[in-house]
Amino acid sequence: MTTPTPSGPVFDLHRRGKLAVAATVPLATRDDLAMAYTPGVALVCEAIAADPTIYPEYTWVGHTVAVVTDGSAVLGLGNIGPRAAMPVMEGKAVLFKQFGGVDAVPICLDTQDVDAIVATVTALAPSFGGINLEDISAPRCFEIERRLTEALPIPVFHDDQHGTAIVVLAALRNATALLGRRLVDLRVVVSGAGAAGVAVTKMLVAGGVSGGGLLVCDSRGIIHSGRCDLNGGKAELAALTNAAGRTGSVADALAGADVLIGVSGGSIEEAAVAAMAPGGIVFALANPTPEVAPEMAARYAAVVATGRSDLPNQINNVLAFPGIFRGALDAGARRITDAMKLAAADAIAAVVADDLRPDQIVPSALDPRVAPAVAAAVAARWA
Amino acid sequence: MTTPTPSGPVFDLHRRGKLAVAATVPLATRDDLAMAYTPGVALVCEAIAADPTIYPEYTWVGHTVAVVTDGSAVLGLGNIGPRAAMPVMEGKAVLFKQFGGVDAVPICLDTQDVDAIVATVTALAPSFGGINLEDISAPRCFEIERRLTEALPIPVFHDDQHGTAIVVLAALRNATALLGRRLVDLRVVVSGAGAAGVAVTKMLVAGGVSGGGLLVCDSRGIIHSGRCDLNGGKAELAALTNAAGRTGSVADALAGADVLIGVSGGSIEEAAVAAMAPGGIVFALANPTPEVAPEMAARYAAVVATGRSDLPNQINNVLAFPGIFRGALDAGARRITDAMKLAAADAIAAVVADDLRPDQIVPSALDPRVAPAVAAAVAARWA
Repeated sequence: MTTPTPSGPVFDLHRRGKLAVAATVPLATRDDLAMAYTPGVALVCEAIAADPTIYPEYTWVGHTVAVVTDGSAVLGLGNIGPRAAMPVMEGKAVLFKQFGGVDAVPICLDTQDVDAIVATVTALAPSFGGINLEDISAPRCFEIERRLTEALPIPVFHDDQHGTAIVVLAALRNATALLGRRLVDLRVVVSGAGAAGVAVTKMLVAGGVSGGGLLVCDSRGIIHSGRCDLNGGKAELAALTNAAGRTGSVADALAGADVLIGVSGGSIEEAAVAAMAPGGIVFALANPTPEVAPEMAARYAAVVATGRSDLPNQINNVLAFPGIFRGALDAGARRITDAMKLAAADAIAAVVADDLRPDQIVPSALDPRVAPAVAAAVAARWA
Repeated sequence: MTTPTPSGPVFDLHRRGKLAVAATVPLATRDDLAMAYTPGVALVCEAIAADPTIYPEYTWVGHTVAVVTDGSAVLGLGNIGPRAAMPVMEGKAVLFKQFGGVDAVPICLDTQDVDAIVATVTALAPSFGGINLEDISAPRCFEIERRLTEALPIPVFHDDQHGTAIVVLAALRNATALLGRRLVDLRVVVSGAGAAGVAVTKMLVAGGVSGGGLLVCDSRGIIHSGRCDLNGGKAELAALTNAAGRTGSVADALAGADVLIGVSGGSIEEAAVAAMAPGGIVFALANPTPEVAPEMAARYAAVVATGRSDLPNQINNVLAFPGIFRGALDAGARRITDAMKLAAADAIAAVVADDLRPDQIVPSALDPRVAPAVAAAVAARWA
């Protein structure tokens, strides 16, 4: 890795970071102090002590989430640690505010031990209305999310898993509709079985794709229940998918398949894409280098999507997370349920459902209609 | 405790809390995203990974502190827990911003176990440029602060201890000057040996008061090294003060004393105040009910101060903490040293040194000159 020199417009923009805390009440006069601070504030403290259910209403907690990372799987940069991860977490917080009106605080943890992360987030949880886990590597992310969801009375959501999965399902719904097909009839291959691959697979099955016909590949090839090298997340996939127990490489899996969803970064050869069923769907989501070059994919597939902002059909988590937390907080939800995630995918897909084109199966990442629609759908599904 | 009804102007003001997170960069267009988020942000991440010393400069961490509490000793309300403590922590964050330009995030912890608090704050510390501990009960606060100071490369400051101590020293310096006396000649009695009492006593001795002649009283009377009931903080006081090994009640201690500093809430009888040396100094800091009624104290003492905003000479921590953290962050300080605390006390005292009156021995809590002066003094003492 070369060491970039801290100069130029990107560094100028990032100087002193991208966030600030703002006061929403005045505290400039003695009367202000007497209302918002001592002695007035004691009334509010006593009321919360007497009835904790009013806590989210009379503090900022009702509109605030923590964006928590241990810096173990940041962008395509890998395990760069909590400090180097902060600029990404700040950016995430800006997106939370801009699209969801959610106040987000980056919390970068100086530990990558699962028990320590669970203990730390559990201890600080009263400070926030929700926990967005971010850029935590698999398989640790699965256990961390599961244990925190069990321990805490507030929503916990690992965006790399579920944000990606929700937007992929939305995109696949629309691509399928555009092609006049049905989800349940598609033969789908997911290439990648990390955090995103596991969540995408589960979400697709929950959303109507046939699990038995779905194949997931990791770097060693098709996942099947006969393999002895599967961690917890992959073992779940083996049980959920590949009912026929197929074996082989990703190229073997792709022969005759309708859909390729790449969430691995591992490149896929042209011959394998050419061997897919004609008129199919390719989502190559690795960033910045998709698993399949988009122009090559377009020679074989009817619909192509990537993770890149400079190409059409960007599968971007920002379509999901701001509205999901906005809706969950508004509804006072204690969990983000599968039903809420499916509702979010439907809402994202619906924004462009009346205007589907091969280069518009999802809304733009910057489309201001998305987050309010997602928030309303998510809140309604909890209530 | 009666349960206040959540209605009226104080509750109206507190609805949805008192803080928000604001973006300081635009993130509304594709170009914005490419600079402040992916792919541009990766440059900054890589630069920090390669050279962590630039971390405070290229993130918000360089101007951000955590206000950390476990809710164990909140205002005069006691152990009301982390959620009921939040309105106070939000108010503190507003004051940090308003007077020090410091972005402060309330972190209310769901544990009162010393080891767990230390582990949690250590784990989340990379997220902040400093840690302001708040409303944590004694004697736990002493161990928590000591262990965090040893563990972390950023300033850790328990405001209930040191903020109070710094402002008391500033006030006592000015009161002493006003009366034409010298600190070293004063016979001082501190009533209260909790977090504030311990820190005030140490700071006064560091600032020039004779430790041997100083007497500290807790609810059982004068602290002396012959007592077997002393926790760590009080044992330190026994070694530092009362060289003559005096015993007895707070009334015994006050006979002939020049200065009474009340930081306990325990009321003191008029006869004891009347028995002090004439023309002395009374700081009765318990809030809302001072240890000595101010009008009664004024019958015997030449200078009277309280913690109340509706009376002259308010000893208010807000004179100290915003400037102290501003200065420490500006200087890149890894500690708040005793020298920095003494410099802060001098700076606070100096703001009104040319205009001392019996009812103006400290600046107003809202005086905008104070925090910049404190910040400059603190930063200079580190550098």
